[in-house]
Amino acid sequence: MEIINGGVNSPIGFETGGTEAGIKYQNRKDMAIIYSQKPCVAAATFTSNVVKAAPVKWDREMIDNSPFVQAVIVNTGIANAGTGVEGYEACRQTASEAAKILGIPENSVLVGSTGVIGPQLPLDRIKAGIAKLAGIKSTDRQSGTDASRAIMTTDTVNKEFAVQLTIGGRTVTIGAMSKGSGMIHPNMCTMLSYVCTDAVISKETLTKLVKEDVVDTYNMISVDGDTSTNDTFIVMANGMAENPEICEGTADYEAFREALHFVNETQAKRLAGDGEGANALIECVVVNAGTKADARTLAKSVICSSLTKAAVFGHDANWGRILCALGYSGAQFDPEHMELFYEGKKNGRILIYKDGAGTDYSEEEASAILSEDEVRIIADMKMGTQTATAWGCDLTFDYVKINADYRS
Amino acid sequence: MEIINGGVNSPIGFETGGTEAGIKYQNRKDMAIIYSQKPCVAAATFTSNVVKAAPVKWDREMIDNSPFVQAVIVNTGIANAGTGVEGYEACRQTASEAAKILGIPENSVLVGSTGVIGPQLPLDRIKAGIAKLAGIKSTDRQSGTDASRAIMTTDTVNKEFAVQLTIGGRTVTIGAMSKGSGMIHPNMCTMLSYVCTDAVISKETLTKLVKEDVVDTYNMISVDGDTSTNDTFIVMANGMAENPEICEGTADYEAFREALHFVNETQAKRLAGDGEGANALIECVVVNAGTKADARTLAKSVICSSLTKAAVFGHDANWGRILCALGYSGAQFDPEHMELFYEGKKNGRILIYKDGAGTDYSEEEASAILSEDEVRIIADMKMGTQTATAWGCDLTFDYVKINADYRS
Repeated sequence: MEIINGGVNSPIGFETGGTEAGIKYQNRKDMAIIYSQKPCVAAATFTSNVVKAAPVKWDREMIDNSPFVQAVIVNTGIANAGTGVEGYEACRQTASEAAKILGIPENSVLVGSTGVIGPQLPLDRIKAGIAKLAGIKSTDRQSGTDASRAIMTTDTVNKEFAVQLTIGGRTVTIGAMSKGSGMIHPNMCTMLSYVCTDAVISKETLTKLVKEDVVDTYNMISVDGDTSTNDTFIVMANGMAENPEICEGTADYEAFREALHFVNETQAKRLAGDGEGANALIECVVVNAGTKADARTLAKSVICSSLTKAAVFGHDANWGRILCALGYSGAQFDPEHMELFYEGKKNGRILIYKDGAGTDYSEEEASAILSEDEVRIIADMKMGTQTATAWGCDLTFDYVKINADYRS
Repeated sequence: MEIINGGVNSPIGFETGGTEAGIKYQNRKDMAIIYSQKPCVAAATFTSNVVKAAPVKWDREMIDNSPFVQAVIVNTGIANAGTGVEGYEACRQTASEAAKILGIPENSVLVGSTGVIGPQLPLDRIKAGIAKLAGIKSTDRQSGTDASRAIMTTDTVNKEFAVQLTIGGRTVTIGAMSKGSGMIHPNMCTMLSYVCTDAVISKETLTKLVKEDVVDTYNMISVDGDTSTNDTFIVMANGMAENPEICEGTADYEAFREALHFVNETQAKRLAGDGEGANALIECVVVNAGTKADARTLAKSVICSSLTKAAVFGHDANWGRILCALGYSGAQFDPEHMELFYEGKKNGRILIYKDGAGTDYSEEEASAILSEDEVRIIADMKMGTQTATAWGCDLTFDYVKINADYRS
């Protein structure tokens, strides 16, 4: 597997684009398209929120029932959530318009929205946007970047990524674009993650891979504990790499699984690190937990703790807050018999808690680690052999600022 | 029942005091005592955190096993959590010293600590503080206020409250002092709530009342979702009102239950409204839920949502965040068939969401409500008849500021 300088339209046959449709913002790209020259099998996971945005309902139905998908139309600015019957009809009209212009079936068009909950989509501007996107969509590298920029809301950087691997002598590419911050606990501005590949793979196999991988990637990040109504993770495969079909139980399957996981983990970490207002990526690695479920619960609890996040923002080695977050996670353990470490890429690793009490670590060394861009917290539970990693970000003044006037 | 100008030492026979012991801070009271002239029956609830502070372990043991309790010694500045065997020994020595000076058994002394996790208590200063407290403790109103001030950490105001009622021709008083913000989701600086009464009541009856009432009072507040290692709620009854014993199934029992609930609810709301950095109390009332558990879950989810809290700080009627928080709470409901309201004491009530979409409410009116000191959010689930209320506060720049440098 090799990382390439690419993105969501790097696999063969995927055309993308981004344009200014004036949905809510002016003078910025706010609509994107992904179009595949050939029909795709697709697999997806969506928000677990009881309140599901209209595009989530539409996409769920298409993914489950359509024989194939071939395009995705995404807008930012308005989430099309809390919009009732009219909101769902807007999805249908969006798909219908795209289908007509692109010459593909209405039920092969997925839609995605992110932004403020409540307002209805301006359908005239959406339809004009689709016409523009259909005209400019392309396999050019720049078109992929344009699409990844057009789906941003409060993101500070666009997030695209691509890898290549060889399967049965054929080069297979996996490309991704993502925005927002979270899946189980996303930022209100929603996580959207689109992964395209030219691999030959069945819908069943792709669905299995997606379901298994999301648990340790997008579901292990959090910015603020709020699960959006719009979260969407879609993988589309158009088979244009012409590799022998990827089937479970083979070395090819393992290679593809690893590559897809690497793409998803990379995008998930980027989403966490670019959480609203964030200065630092916080990574919590739980090792030697009794069960995999406990390991995930413990790691998630630490990166979700407002107090731990605020302490990292203050470069303050207030390890009691980590211990506390582990303690209220719901997982059982013995606080007298576990260890905590801080680790930074530049400043190495230090033991901060052992045998039920703090060690005599140096506050200066600890603060130096906590000043790095990526702060790793390691919790050795000494209960078993299971491991999990979760990613979050620090809690800053800017988080409050952004969210106190998000709508204005 | 009548509210009186009083506090934790208003019931007959309770002496209190607060003093400067220099535990961590200088020039402020940081140790408090509650002493009862007669032995008390006591009931308590403590943090559900797996990591329990040493004083929680000590108190749990005393409440469960001692025939009676007669005093509480509380310090702020250091939480005595994450302190291992040495920390528990510090509790024993604190109790032992107080017992010696007060002339009561060691196992009748409860201890409480709040502050930073990690450091060991300075026992010499604790012991000197006990000697001072024993010398100044008094039934004076000022002594109650002194005690309530001495247990503050990041609280901006002290919180004392008292009510009186008549039971069997005798006046019974219930007095309280509390600090911090939360029980299930408290601020790291810990919730401590001490309620004293001169009522004659058995330990069994008091324990039942405490267990039942905490669910709808202290357990329904949250500041930041972090459950402290030190949370403590203790009720002590010394029987000096000489009323006929309060027994279950009587009118006296109901009157006492209501009075105790009123004290607890009042203190709980004050804790939430004085959450770190808070400008406003947020009250979420869920009505017509299918089950009581769902009602509690839904109300808690709203007041815990960082995005809802930040929107209130910004006086922004971003109701989608409320809908979203209800949606990810874990309770099931039909988002197309429920209603949301904002309500303020000065600006009345407005309907903001109905039939799956926002109403055409006035943004100005909504913003006026959201600018009040107490903001009420009402969610009518239209599923059944169950109701619950939860209390939180807005998320402000000051919350981040306080917690980014809490230790310094």
